[in-house]
Amino acid sequence: MAEQRITPWDVEVVSTDEVPVAIDYDKIINQFGCEKFNQALADRLEKLSGKPAHYFFRRGIVFAHRDFNLLLDEIANNRPFYLYTGRGPSSKTMHIGHTIPFLLCKYMQDAFKIRLVIQITDDEKFLWKSMRLEDAMAYGRENIKDIVALGFDPKLTYIFSNVEASHHFEENILKISKTINLNEAIKVFGFDMSSNIGQVGFPAKEIAPCFSSSFRFIGKGAMCLVPAAVDQDPFFRLARDKAKALGEKKPSSIYVSLLPDLKGVNRKMSASDPNSSIYLDDAQDTIRKKIIAYAYSGGRKTLEEHREKGGDIDVDVPFEYLKYFLDDDQELEKYRSGYIKGEITSKEMKEKCVVVIQEFVSRYQESRKRVTDDDLRAFIDINKF
Amino acid sequence: MAEQRITPWDVEVVSTDEVPVAIDYDKIINQFGCEKFNQALADRLEKLSGKPAHYFFRRGIVFAHRDFNLLLDEIANNRPFYLYTGRGPSSKTMHIGHTIPFLLCKYMQDAFKIRLVIQITDDEKFLWKSMRLEDAMAYGRENIKDIVALGFDPKLTYIFSNVEASHHFEENILKISKTINLNEAIKVFGFDMSSNIGQVGFPAKEIAPCFSSSFRFIGKGAMCLVPAAVDQDPFFRLARDKAKALGEKKPSSIYVSLLPDLKGVNRKMSASDPNSSIYLDDAQDTIRKKIIAYAYSGGRKTLEEHREKGGDIDVDVPFEYLKYFLDDDQELEKYRSGYIKGEITSKEMKEKCVVVIQEFVSRYQESRKRVTDDDLRAFIDINKF
Repeated sequence: MAEQRITPWDVEVVSTDEVPVAIDYDKIINQFGCEKFNQALADRLEKLSGKPAHYFFRRGIVFAHRDFNLLLDEIANNRPFYLYTGRGPSSKTMHIGHTIPFLLCKYMQDAFKIRLVIQITDDEKFLWKSMRLEDAMAYGRENIKDIVALGFDPKLTYIFSNVEASHHFEENILKISKTINLNEAIKVFGFDMSSNIGQVGFPAKEIAPCFSSSFRFIGKGAMCLVPAAVDQDPFFRLARDKAKALGEKKPSSIYVSLLPDLKGVNRKMSASDPNSSIYLDDAQDTIRKKIIAYAYSGGRKTLEEHREKGGDIDVDVPFEYLKYFLDDDQELEKYRSGYIKGEITSKEMKEKCVVVIQEFVSRYQESRKRVTDDDLRAFIDINKF
Repeated sequence: MAEQRITPWDVEVVSTDEVPVAIDYDKIINQFGCEKFNQALADRLEKLSGKPAHYFFRRGIVFAHRDFNLLLDEIANNRPFYLYTGRGPSSKTMHIGHTIPFLLCKYMQDAFKIRLVIQITDDEKFLWKSMRLEDAMAYGRENIKDIVALGFDPKLTYIFSNVEASHHFEENILKISKTINLNEAIKVFGFDMSSNIGQVGFPAKEIAPCFSSSFRFIGKGAMCLVPAAVDQDPFFRLARDKAKALGEKKPSSIYVSLLPDLKGVNRKMSASDPNSSIYLDDAQDTIRKKIIAYAYSGGRKTLEEHREKGGDIDVDVPFEYLKYFLDDDQELEKYRSGYIKGEITSKEMKEKCVVVIQEFVSRYQESRKRVTDDDLRAFIDINKF
């Protein structure tokens, strides 16, 4: 039996089996009450953008949504919308899993030339972790540069630290806070008597940017689309529940599945264990060593057995990474079917993964090197619009 | 039997007696665990300031304190201290009861030439009352002018709206929030499952200005003295509990008793019932009418009985007001003893009260008329120091 624990602060499948049990995304959809993403939505998105949908849409990485059909209606009717996502600065450098929602945002921004708001929840990390506030803020500033390096348009993108700039939305935060009582907050977020009062008040801060009236530069009435990791859904579900009372449009959301930890598909990549994560500043040989030494493989005990039975693709972490970072569909399929048939060995799968991740990280690092303090200032300037 | 209910949001003595039962301040001291104010403290204050102590100190209006002796030690040793008080903008115009802690602050500022910080809790009024945020903020701005009219030194006084400016202390607010868990907040402030999450988070905002590191213009290490109405003690008791963990000095506090409602000494003057309160913008004849018609009198049923038994001074609201607003000790004593002996009638007591309050309000209104938007700006400018 496997038990799934998915909250904004904890994502893991706890199982008594020896082999890691992958996160069951249908179960999440059921638990959270969101809708399954389907091909028809991806097709409609392609038609509206006039561009091929990102492979995240085609490979089930975007696996769930809320009202994405309504968001597509807005686009079809030429009504304004904007993107909102966030980042909790748990480490000085982001790992490759953290880039997924941002890559999705970049695709959407490039496709529709729309505004994007990114919240850095340095306050959250301070309130939940044993971390000094000054460190959380410093990590946040570094992470902003990490995000900038992914290639967003500074003219269309506003990135802000909660500690330094959430007061720009203070009136909305208060109005949202007044609509959420303790009973509801405990039910949705699992607070208990040992939760601190900063934690209890925090949800209003993550919710506020879902409402366009929070931003004078977006304008009341624009619909918000939140591309996010699915563990953040409780915030957006609550935002949707409160929208009407606040006179706001319900945000739409699309959820990406969680890039697994190197050590197993049962939990998301965590920044706290360096051997479980591939950081965006890892050297090429570090990436290689981590994948070869630590990546959980679906290969069999012996090469003979592998050739005969094939690999267990569902728990193979290197293959999972290829799904997220190898954009060539045909090549991906070659590795998938070859692995199942036992034609491709675990070693070969890992080596392919090494090359793909090394390429992604190396390209990223080239871009990151060029991010200056001036770039940072351009992104955090709320007065630019 | 009388039951006292004193919380930051509710002050009343509920009694089955027909005659209002006055708030029992010894009971409050006991309930809250603060110390009784005594003559020795007032004497020492006089010696250190070289000025007579304000009559609030001599008449038991300042009735309780926390560590005021330690604050006097700081003064004696020429160490810096500052004042912090606040105002919840529950109405567009303040009533005379609201001025008491401010009059005390003015006395202390004049005596020691020290800095004063005043927090306008517009956020609190929005979160607790059925009031639009925009109205709470507008009331707050009017109330700032009301406070300015009491004659504070703009060079030494910073007044701020929580909604508009509490972000200047955001880092301290977060650090304080992290030290208070839900269990403690519920115990101290009586929150329950229907409390909204803004309310639950609010205490950290009222506590933050107790710590000098919140203000770059005060400087770390200055002790804070909080002159306040006693119903705010839970905040400052909690601030003191957390000071050490936060590396801050414990604030000292002095508490004034609550100016009674016109209709009885069992509850504090409330801004919500216009016939219970004398507003700072009431016309002279309105003041007269309210006191004559509504002020609860300790007089006897007939003049004959009054002459014989004397009046009940303990429940006489007009006499209570004289204690707060008539600065001549001898005249006050004349009214006290004369009333007890039956020589002074209820009518005469009320007429004296009318004159004293009319004079106070008229002098105040002269000053209020001269408060301009420029004055307001001078007080809310955090960069002036």
